[in-house]
Amino acid sequence: MKRNVLIIGAGGVAQVVAHKCAQNNDVLGDLHIASRTVSKCEAILDTVRDKAAMKEDGVFEAHEVDATDSDAVAALIGSTGAQIVINVGTAFVNMHVLDACIATGSAYIDTAIHEEPDKICETPPWYANYEWKRRELCAEKGITAILGAGFDPGVVNAFARFAIDQMDEVTSIDIVDINAGSHGKYFATNFDPEINFREFTGVVYSWQNGAWQENTMFEVGRSWDLPVVGPSQAYMSGHDEVHSLATNYPQADVRFWMGFGDHYINVFTVLKNIGLLSEQPVMTAEGQEVVPLKLVKACLPDPSSLAPDYTGKTCIGDLVSGRKDGKPVDYFVYNVADHKEAYEEVGSQGISYTAGVPPVAAAMLVATGEWDAKTMRNVEELDPKPFFTILDAIGLPTRVQIGGLGGKDMPWTEV
Amino acid sequence: MKRNVLIIGAGGVAQVVAHKCAQNNDVLGDLHIASRTVSKCEAILDTVRDKAAMKEDGVFEAHEVDATDSDAVAALIGSTGAQIVINVGTAFVNMHVLDACIATGSAYIDTAIHEEPDKICETPPWYANYEWKRRELCAEKGITAILGAGFDPGVVNAFARFAIDQMDEVTSIDIVDINAGSHGKYFATNFDPEINFREFTGVVYSWQNGAWQENTMFEVGRSWDLPVVGPSQAYMSGHDEVHSLATNYPQADVRFWMGFGDHYINVFTVLKNIGLLSEQPVMTAEGQEVVPLKLVKACLPDPSSLAPDYTGKTCIGDLVSGRKDGKPVDYFVYNVADHKEAYEEVGSQGISYTAGVPPVAAAMLVATGEWDAKTMRNVEELDPKPFFTILDAIGLPTRVQIGGLGGKDMPWTEV
Repeated sequence: MKRNVLIIGAGGVAQVVAHKCAQNNDVLGDLHIASRTVSKCEAILDTVRDKAAMKEDGVFEAHEVDATDSDAVAALIGSTGAQIVINVGTAFVNMHVLDACIATGSAYIDTAIHEEPDKICETPPWYANYEWKRRELCAEKGITAILGAGFDPGVVNAFARFAIDQMDEVTSIDIVDINAGSHGKYFATNFDPEINFREFTGVVYSWQNGAWQENTMFEVGRSWDLPVVGPSQAYMSGHDEVHSLATNYPQADVRFWMGFGDHYINVFTVLKNIGLLSEQPVMTAEGQEVVPLKLVKACLPDPSSLAPDYTGKTCIGDLVSGRKDGKPVDYFVYNVADHKEAYEEVGSQGISYTAGVPPVAAAMLVATGEWDAKTMRNVEELDPKPFFTILDAIGLPTRVQIGGLGGKDMPWTEV
Repeated sequence: MKRNVLIIGAGGVAQVVAHKCAQNNDVLGDLHIASRTVSKCEAILDTVRDKAAMKEDGVFEAHEVDATDSDAVAALIGSTGAQIVINVGTAFVNMHVLDACIATGSAYIDTAIHEEPDKICETPPWYANYEWKRRELCAEKGITAILGAGFDPGVVNAFARFAIDQMDEVTSIDIVDINAGSHGKYFATNFDPEINFREFTGVVYSWQNGAWQENTMFEVGRSWDLPVVGPSQAYMSGHDEVHSLATNYPQADVRFWMGFGDHYINVFTVLKNIGLLSEQPVMTAEGQEVVPLKLVKACLPDPSSLAPDYTGKTCIGDLVSGRKDGKPVDYFVYNVADHKEAYEEVGSQGISYTAGVPPVAAAMLVATGEWDAKTMRNVEELDPKPFFTILDAIGLPTRVQIGGLGGKDMPWTEV
């Protein structure tokens, strides 16, 4: 059954979501996009028209909304008849949008945990601080809420579930995210610098030996030799999916590794040590109160501006180890994406593409009923196979190396 | 004859000026200090009392003044009976304070060129853009105005003049400023970060082959093996004194070299490339207009806070080459200062000390009449010997190496 969709947000990821919804509006029905700045929504709709992305004739309208105002979002859900909300606004609005969905009966899909502007890397598991507090209410009211349905978190949670489904027992999940692309700028982040840096300025939480472990950023690093992109240095980092996977698979070690070059680390270290990545305001000599991180964001390139010149590929995957019939087994489940192909298809760079395609696949599965769980779910709590099937079809194919990294390589359908 | 002094400014250099004026109030008479924030002046007077710095009983009073308001400064000169104004406020106030001196007949002394907040490294020679436009008026009204009478510019101009006085002909003047001290912080500037960085973000002007040459910062570097501090890497930089020395000695090459470690250069390069050293406002996503450089200043340590833990020495000197009786001659004229000794004497670090002692020596020479030129002068246009005599006595002795760097070393009095 077709379900009308409301997209919240108008950044680089929202642009991908808009294009992918348009390309699949035979499944999704009427489409709407809303953000604080309606002109940004209209600019996205212009690119949808330019690419003639709508699969069939239909509605795609832009709206202005303050997504921190639950009542306003609920009113917009009502006036647009949206049955699925894809929230790809800033991480600060999640709970407000989720509450609007609960109030109106709409399904909710997001791609990252809720954050409060003045707090960083709170007590693990992160989801328990905000989203999971609505779990019982969602179950009670039959609200489908799919948390963290981007690539990481999102597809990587499904990768883990898929590998674990092949085993009797899982012992470790290592998620590795390597962007081997080049944007040609002195320095830029691939998504909102504010959210990007906030991930790295606090405690790095991992789940090992049945307990939360704390490290600092760039303290634990190793080289990973991944398909297509080759050997890449990556560092253990805090990331959303560690917090749900550790809760669902407490017997396994769960770690997230993000690739960083020396140049990124140097710039990050300078900015952090000087205090320029702080989310706490400082006072200038002239008496102006400024949040340093917000100024750094304003000085850095807009991530969506990187798209036209971005070249190279990303590889994101899960190395999952466990036992089957008493013997050790390892699977590396992964996707490779290409920045230039993403730009040619939807006008965005590869990082936005990998983050924006999966929530549309999730929305399609809610529309078909396969993922219409009528409760709150993290992605590993849902069947990964229909998700992979749609992702294969709409731009993010899943492959597997059996025996772990460098093992026999095949599409997931042949496993 | 005693001359009452008004100090404008209440930063690290002003603290040194205050202590040195107090230590020499038998020559200087009543003392006054004024800044936008009177509490900063009072804090300085507290340290003067703590050190019992006043040589003889006398007046030392704090005042509030907006130094960008010429009339207010003139009124304060009138009410305090100041006959000499030592301007060590921000470089943005020079012309306003100078005009107040011209209006009231007071002598004027500063330590750095005038700057406009929204302009950087303007057309050379810099003095011609602002201060020298008042030269004829000073001559006409008999106003003594001594420009750039800190260490560099200031003492180094006198170093050049002293060496040139030993020659028939000067061919080059290389001013080298090495701070081999350690403040123990991740990163800090030794004086106002805003002024410090502004020096390095624009064009590096030098005077070579009879013309202004343009380079970028850190483009031209070499190692200098200086007395006491040893081999140090320094880079050709823009600096005030190049602009007056090149005008007075157009037959000589005039270059300024400042020492920088790799860490300083790395931090500077990151901040500059990201745009965080810009003096032009940027707009944050929240619509706040912020001048990046002012935020960076707010994040960095206050230079005066470095003083208690600062160790090591500075060496600043001039390598002057020329000809005498048809033969090549070289002089290295220099001073070595010690951060810890400066702190123990006046509660400031060595960079503030070297900048703050010389304008007091200049004020004493105005009071004694030796430098009471009744017109506008850069320091190389005044007799260096009485200046060196006072500096020897009050904390900054001048030494000379004959034959250039590493040559026979002696006090200037033995040359």
